[in-house]
Amino acid sequence: MRTIVQKYGGTSVGSVELIQRVAQKVAAVRERGDRIAVVVSAMGDSTDRLVDLAAGISREPNPREMDVLLSTGEQVSIALLAMALCERGVPARSFTGSQIRVRTTNIHRRARITDVETKRLRETIDAGIVPVVAGFQGIDDDGDITTIGRGGSDTSAVALAVALKADECQILTDVDGVYTTDPRMVPEARLLKRISFEEMLELAGQGSRVLHLRSVEFAAKYNVPLRVLSSFRPGEGTLICKEDPHVEAPLISGIAFNRDEAQLTIAGLPDTPDCVARVLKPISAANIEVDMIVLATARDGFKDLSFTVHRDDFLEAQRHARHVTSQFSGATLTADDKVAKLAVVGVGMRSHAGVATQLFESLARQGVKAQLISTSEIKISVLVPEAVLESCIRCLHKDLRLA
Amino acid sequence: MRTIVQKYGGTSVGSVELIQRVAQKVAAVRERGDRIAVVVSAMGDSTDRLVDLAAGISREPNPREMDVLLSTGEQVSIALLAMALCERGVPARSFTGSQIRVRTTNIHRRARITDVETKRLRETIDAGIVPVVAGFQGIDDDGDITTIGRGGSDTSAVALAVALKADECQILTDVDGVYTTDPRMVPEARLLKRISFEEMLELAGQGSRVLHLRSVEFAAKYNVPLRVLSSFRPGEGTLICKEDPHVEAPLISGIAFNRDEAQLTIAGLPDTPDCVARVLKPISAANIEVDMIVLATARDGFKDLSFTVHRDDFLEAQRHARHVTSQFSGATLTADDKVAKLAVVGVGMRSHAGVATQLFESLARQGVKAQLISTSEIKISVLVPEAVLESCIRCLHKDLRLA
Repeated sequence: MRTIVQKYGGTSVGSVELIQRVAQKVAAVRERGDRIAVVVSAMGDSTDRLVDLAAGISREPNPREMDVLLSTGEQVSIALLAMALCERGVPARSFTGSQIRVRTTNIHRRARITDVETKRLRETIDAGIVPVVAGFQGIDDDGDITTIGRGGSDTSAVALAVALKADECQILTDVDGVYTTDPRMVPEARLLKRISFEEMLELAGQGSRVLHLRSVEFAAKYNVPLRVLSSFRPGEGTLICKEDPHVEAPLISGIAFNRDEAQLTIAGLPDTPDCVARVLKPISAANIEVDMIVLATARDGFKDLSFTVHRDDFLEAQRHARHVTSQFSGATLTADDKVAKLAVVGVGMRSHAGVATQLFESLARQGVKAQLISTSEIKISVLVPEAVLESCIRCLHKDLRLA
Repeated sequence: MRTIVQKYGGTSVGSVELIQRVAQKVAAVRERGDRIAVVVSAMGDSTDRLVDLAAGISREPNPREMDVLLSTGEQVSIALLAMALCERGVPARSFTGSQIRVRTTNIHRRARITDVETKRLRETIDAGIVPVVAGFQGIDDDGDITTIGRGGSDTSAVALAVALKADECQILTDVDGVYTTDPRMVPEARLLKRISFEEMLELAGQGSRVLHLRSVEFAAKYNVPLRVLSSFRPGEGTLICKEDPHVEAPLISGIAFNRDEAQLTIAGLPDTPDCVARVLKPISAANIEVDMIVLATARDGFKDLSFTVHRDDFLEAQRHARHVTSQFSGATLTADDKVAKLAVVGVGMRSHAGVATQLFESLARQGVKAQLISTSEIKISVLVPEAVLESCIRCLHKDLRLA
């Protein structure tokens, strides 16, 4: 008998009819003889509705109260799903994050789960009752309600799976699984049956927004197999698990991309140990996240530093960069917010040479000049003009034989 | 320095704008130097919306889950009001029934408050922070969320006032206070400055739906002065408190009425000790509430039993009554669902004779025949044809010099 944790996202519980379908799916798992706990998100756009209410009260709502407000969204979902299960004759009981004791840090709006008490959860499952748990929420040491950030229900599900030592944590969503690249862009994109945690982390971080990044990290840390699958269509989805050393990994798992990039380059920086820090410090002090960072040696004794930021932060980052540039005599700033990033990911790259060559040959055939290149053990990221992103990915998908 | 508990109902917190007005009123109490705790209901029709959602899932939703669902309504209100107070610079903190530990019995949908822990509440007030508490909800011994029935937020407020030993519990609502009778029916109706708990219980029970009955009982039991006042208009409202033996009570406080009555009379019952019980047993077994009960001696050795039920229960009650009547040979059933009840209430009646005489003289002048009469120490109730209810009350209000 396996123990499964299933998580249903907002689109899967977006209406009373959909909640009834979820109840049917949960009942089916039970009929197969598996033990199950369910985690749910807030219904469809209900979180947005709550955010709008708060926006009517304050431009910067008190974070503690925001969490009290937002957590009602999941509470509605758990009550309705538990009702729907009871209605089908499946014994079920809902639990808020506070009732199950999902303990978190006390940073409101983006708390981190520190512990999940399992006593009540285990008793419930042992009694043949399906626990229906509110995702996204927890409780801090003062008994105050916390939330763990948007998309955090994935992380709640993994935390529950870890606590219950579940055999698998299934994330049911509106996509069929993880593809070699976005199927809306490349129709030949292929569904991956299996992918390693590491690859998934690189893909998710790059914008394959199937799973919340933290949930994958969490699952990897505690080695809980994660499965992403559709809550609407049949199929096995994609299993995300530890790399199997006995199976030869494919060279490349997929191509991720991200349109929201903006590039800043300061040329002619002095070659001193502190120059990178001096440039990046005001950017991070302004809470702007920096993604790619590339330092290259240019003319004798000088360095060029390039980095990318989210396009929303472009103007502010540019302002800080301009100020910093003025402090280095002879340094010049160039900026470009019409760029996009693509990334080829695969654990196979570790042992196979030549992926980079294939990648740049493909780009060259298309006449595309990479603006920035950054590599890790299992990933090569390339910044290209946004206008050519789509055609680049289509060609790469073909040239790297991902279809 | 006084300690005040204020309760704002659903219409008072029906929108973001109204919540901001409530925040303003709470801030004003604090500026006067009083200590304050606030209890709020769910926003406007949000409870109805939640009930509709549940109705889409099940005709008889699981009661435990219904409470989990319904309690989100108040949780939204407390978060928004606490935000609005913080936004105005008034330190505030929201608390759910579970956080403040409003302990109740475990009868879902109509739990009863057994205890309110005051530690956190007192600490909050002592720290100069306004606690904003969710009405209507509590927690049972298993940590499950309970609700105490519609209108229960009034009772939550009184329970909090009792626990905090507050000087006054103020119920802010959409009426100005308690009137001698419904001002929509009698324009000369007068706002009562003060009324005793007993009188209020008789008035509320009779349909002056200003306050939830249980909250008045609770306040009377622990002797917490209650004040009903408008959250929209200025004014002192009506103070409901213990009868002051040093003040001569007015003869009559007011006239209550109830249109939703239906009358059943079984004539010709045998004069045996068990006959009333035999008649009423099947009615109460069907969970039908009986209001007035009048037993009169008729022909030698026989009794006539009349009782009234809510008009919604008329057909079912009639069915049971018909069955019972058939068991007594010679007994006959008459039924009338076009009746209404009026009641004259006043503690002064205890010591003043003649109110009944004035009442029936007034009715006689109007040519109205009372169909049933029932009296208590401080109340006289009369069942009249529904068609004449309004004119009766207008004349009585004048003849009894209530204006």
